[in-house]
Order: sequence, then C-alpha cells, then structure tokens
Amino acid sequence: MRLGILGAGQLGRMLALAARPLDIDVRCLDPADDPPAAAVASCIRAPWDDAAARERFRAGLSVVTYEFENVPLALTEHLAARVPVHPAPAILGLGQDRLNEKRLFERLGIETAPFAAVQGHADLSAAAETLGYPLRLKTRRLGYDGKGQWVIRNADEMRKISRSWRGGSAIAERDLTFSRELSILAVRGTDRETRFYPVIENVHVGGILASSTPRVGDPLQGAAEAAATRVLDALGYVGVLAIEFFVLDNRLVANELAPRVHNSGHATIEGAVTSQFENHVRAVCGLPLGNTDSRGPCAMLNIIGAAPDTAAILAVDDAHLHLYGKSARPGRKLGHVTVCAGDETALAARVERVRRALAREEV
Amino acid sequence: MRLGILGAGQLGRMLALAARPLDIDVRCLDPADDPPAAAVASCIRAPWDDAAARERFRAGLSVVTYEFENVPLALTEHLAARVPVHPAPAILGLGQDRLNEKRLFERLGIETAPFAAVQGHADLSAAAETLGYPLRLKTRRLGYDGKGQWVIRNADEMRKISRSWRGGSAIAERDLTFSRELSILAVRGTDRETRFYPVIENVHVGGILASSTPRVGDPLQGAAEAAATRVLDALGYVGVLAIEFFVLDNRLVANELAPRVHNSGHATIEGAVTSQFENHVRAVCGLPLGNTDSRGPCAMLNIIGAAPDTAAILAVDDAHLHLYGKSARPGRKLGHVTVCAGDETALAARVERVRRALAREEV
Repeated sequence: MRLGILGAGQLGRMLALAARPLDIDVRCLDPADDPPAAAVASCIRAPWDDAAARERFRAGLSVVTYEFENVPLALTEHLAARVPVHPAPAILGLGQDRLNEKRLFERLGIETAPFAAVQGHADLSAAAETLGYPLRLKTRRLGYDGKGQWVIRNADEMRKISRSWRGGSAIAERDLTFSRELSILAVRGTDRETRFYPVIENVHVGGILASSTPRVGDPLQGAAEAAATRVLDALGYVGVLAIEFFVLDNRLVANELAPRVHNSGHATIEGAVTSQFENHVRAVCGLPLGNTDSRGPCAMLNIIGAAPDTAAILAVDDAHLHLYGKSARPGRKLGHVTVCAGDETALAARVERVRRALAREEV
Repeated sequence: MRLGILGAGQLGRMLALAARPLDIDVRCLDPADDPPAAAVASCIRAPWDDAAARERFRAGLSVVTYEFENVPLALTEHLAARVPVHPAPAILGLGQDRLNEKRLFERLGIETAPFAAVQGHADLSAAAETLGYPLRLKTRRLGYDGKGQWVIRNADEMRKISRSWRGGSAIAERDLTFSRELSILAVRGTDRETRFYPVIENVHVGGILASSTPRVGDPLQGAAEAAATRVLDALGYVGVLAIEFFVLDNRLVANELAPRVHNSGHATIEGAVTSQFENHVRAVCGLPLGNTDSRGPCAMLNIIGAAPDTAAILAVDDAHLHLYGKSARPGRKLGHVTVCAGDETALAARVERVRRALAREEV
C-alpha cells in the first residue's frame, strides 16, 4: 500500500514515521527545497501547479491525504477524481476558510464567538457596533500561528487598523476572555468507526502553541466529543479531525477546526496507546483504528525558534525529543518534547526541567 | 550529527527510525539490493570490500555502529582508525566467534555449558567422551537463527554426523536441558553510565526466536545484570549489549552474546520508557541514556515466513505492528508484533488473538 501526502512538513514526517512500521510506503509532494518529511519518505519537490510532478506523485498511490490546510483545493479535487482523498477535498476547502468554518459550527448548533463577515473598513466598523470590543479581525484564508490576525480593543485602535489592514475577505469576531483553551482530536475510519482522544489543554504564547496537556476525565470531554461527532457526521469525515475550543463559564466555544493531525496531539506518540499519526494513517488506509486511551500523565512543549540543547533535554527522565530537521528561525516550530510521568507531581517537575532546558537557563 | 550503520536490515531500520526524532542523520552500508533500512535512511549498496563505497560511507560520519555480527572485522578496523566505532571492533570480532565468546564468559567467571574447541571428527569424538551426550555442535562463525548447528544425541548420531558436518573450526558443547531462556539487554554510554532492561523470557521454535516477554522483578535480574556488567567492564563496551542465558536450577548459564540491539528487545519500543534502539543511538552518539523501566505488561511475537493479515492484527487492542518491508520466504523474520495490556490476564488474551491472526486461524 502506498500513501500520498500533500505537504512534507513535520506533520508529514511524523505520519511517514508512523506509516513505515505498517509497511505502508509514503510519497510526499511539497514545493519546499528540503522539507522535514524528505528524510523518511520519498518526496517529489515541485510547485503545487506542476502537472507533470502531480502525475508522478499520483502514480501507484492507494490513497491521498494532506498534512496542512493550505494545499490548493483544485489539486485535491483533481486527485480525488482518480484516487481516494481523505479527508475529502470539500472538507479541506472548508478548513481553508475561517468564515465557512464558523458558519458550519453555527449550522450544527456548536457555539462560537459572535462573528461577522467583513470586506472593508465600513463592514468592520459595523461589526464593532454589533459585536462590541475587543474585536479580533482575521483574514478568511492562509492564516496560521497567529499570522493574519489583529486585535482591536477600542474605537481608537479601530481608527488605526487601516494602517495594517487594507481590507479583503475577512472575519471579525468578538475576542473572548476565556479561562482555558481545549482541543479535541477525533478519528474516524472508512467504516465510520470513531474514536476520541482525551481533550487537551493548550497554552498559546504570541499566537503560537507553546504547550499541550491531555486532561483525562475532564468534565468537558463529553461536550467536546458531541461537537466533534456533529462535524464528522456533517462532513462524511475520514481521518483525524481537530477542533479547538475556548472555555467560558464551563462551556465550550468552538474556535477553529483542522482537517488533519494537529500540533496539540503530538503527545499521543508516547502518551496514548496509538498515536494520532498512526490512527490517521490507519483511518485513511481503511485499517482498523487503534485504541486512543491515555498511557498516563504527560505534556508536550513545542521547541520554537532556537535549536535546543539536546543533551539537557534527554537528561530529563521520560522526556522524548522530536526534532523536525528544520533550520532555526524566530517563531519557527523546530520540534517538540513530550514528557511523561507516573503522577502529576513528577510530571510538573520534569516539565519545568524541560522548560528550563529549552530556555537554556542554568538548572 | 550523522550516524553510520554497517548493515541495513530490520535492526538498522529500527535504529534509523529511533535516530530521526533526535535529528541524527543515518547512513547505512549494505550489500543487499533492497535492504529494510533503505526506506528510512540513506543507504549505500555495495559489497563490503568496495573501497570506494567505504569512503563514500565514511565521509562526514560522526560515529559508526553495526547492526549485525557478520560485518567484516577488517572493515570496522579500517573505519575505527578514522572515526569512532561503537562497540569497538575487537568486540565485534569476539561476537563473530562462538568459541572466543565462551572463553570470555569462562574467563569472567560466568557459567556456560561445558564446551570444547573442535576442528574435525577426532576432536568431536573426544569432546563427546569428555562432555557427554547430548552434544551441540556449532560452527565458530557465521551462524544465526539456528543455522550452522547440529544436535548429536548419541553415539549412533555421532557416526552419522560426518555426512552433514565436514569439519572446520567449531565448538562442541553439552546441550543442556533448561527450564527457561532469558536474555538481558544492557546499555552503556561513552561516559560509562549504564542501564539495564528487565530480563526477557524467550521462546525459540526451530532455532528461531518466536516470542519474548519482559519479566519485571524476575529473581534472576540481579544475576543477569552482574554478568552483563562483567562483560561491559571487560570489553570497554559502548552501546546496547545482549546476553542470552539458559536457566538451569534457577542458575543462569550464558549461551551467547550479541554486541548490538537484539530481537528479544523489540518490545522495548512500546513496552519501555526508552527503546533499545533509541538507547543504542544515544549511547554511541554520546548522549545521555534514557530510562529503561517497563511501561507495563507486554510481549513480542515474531512474524516469520509469511506476510500477516495486517487488519486482523491491528484489530487487537494495544497490538503494535512492525513490518520490515521484506518479501516473504520460509523462516525469514518479516516483522514483529508487540502487545501491551494493563494486566497479565488481558495480555494473555491479546497475545492469543495475535497468535491466531499470525497463524491465519479463524478467530
């Protein structure tokens, strides 16, 4: 069996690492020069619109998936006419557009922050009147890790926004004050078998995910699963689906979805019986899904911007280093560390040691 | 950092899979056409004595290791003059020779089966008189998975052995009746930090390892560690070392050592905090060693000869499939399955389900 992956970043790399032991061959397509997955999978390096490369990519594939949302929709549609593509291209299209995502949540009765479509400054001012401040303005497309977003706290900041935002397809939403951020990862197979991982509590710093901690037995697990089920059902979904929520007054407010494996689920490699990567591969390849239970307390810390002191991290008991083979650059996700422990106290101590190692503080 | 591995079989493949997340680049050298590790590491395919290939292999390597014993000793010696080789070539040389191995055990006060060096049939008859029947005759070199071995049960079989054995450097040893087979895996770093995995109970069928089960808290753990420590100390060892023992009257009798990661340790991928593969990579690369504690009950079953029903195996809860990308052939190790569980009863039931799936029996 040969799995094609559109994109060859770290998610593609970890998908390929999970596919290998199942004897599933992986071929990626990516325009980047030296993408992370190329070290562990065959990789065709070509622009997305290179038709000859697309045909070389497609030849002999059993199934195609993608590792990030910003793959051209037309490419997935072209492929889907010839080979199964999971999740389906229409779902990718939805995941590429923040407004359509919000409208889907609304249609399915999943609470979101109050929002409005905006095209220009007149719309934006009207949205401020309806929704109130603080307001978050986001481009409809191509945003990630906090890019393409602006927070407008008051009328004064509204007057200044014209300097940084020139208008265009965007969404304005009420910027909520929340107590926690949670995500849920669901996986559904081609036979509709469905499994959920324990919800994960996430901490973002500067718009970039900094750490994720699975919360086994969280009181919001059921509500998160119910929301995910509605999305899976509505979309005829196959593969791993991630939904990010804010928690307000013990209610889940959906923020966004990702039709793919998700950074908040990286701790499943060591922390769950079956990782999100293996389960995504199993799902899209039509294999039985694996158990999603937790193996015990764990947490994930992203490695952002600077290459870490490898030895200092590996010296921490039950710390698991995952580097992506990327060169260092400010704000860039270079890897992650998952820390496991027998109990929460030991976990907190180990997480602190890893945090210090990542910050290159003296221990 | 770039690690060179002599050999690119399944052990090289699993070493490469463990090295990648540490951002350690792997380059293998192997004469085979399509070796298992080639899917996940760069691989130079050339005869062992190809000097040009050897130089291409060596260029830019930080350290060299090997994944099986039958790499030419001269090649490792040539490399060791130019780049660190772990474990040292002298240890490889020892692991290639069953007689020298036995003599090492004897010198270190580690009990073995009574043995004698033999060259021809006269020696063999003399050995039979001294050691008694049943006798096991083994070539000194190049045996594995029961190949190059004969059992001689009585004088009648001794008369017939001349048909199958033409003489040559060999070892005759008393073929012991044992209650169990155990192995110990030790790992030692360049700074002499040492860790031991729980001893593993092994079942061989037809000379080939069929299954391995870690035995946490086994009363022979301490004796196994003591024997391994003597070997590590005597050899100035760096990397993973495996020693196989027979258990007779609750005593350990050393059978053989392997200066490498070992088939009986494959369950450490899911069953231990740090796998034998990651720990070998850490050790030879001069990184801190990882915790070797068990994560809970588990067992490993080898997949031998015939390609398994992948879906049937993956349908078993907490069963983890590892295929090596090899074509099926009688007696060939094509992969393994590690099964984990919360307790021994659940483990036994899951192992039985996997065993049936491997045998393609109706469940």
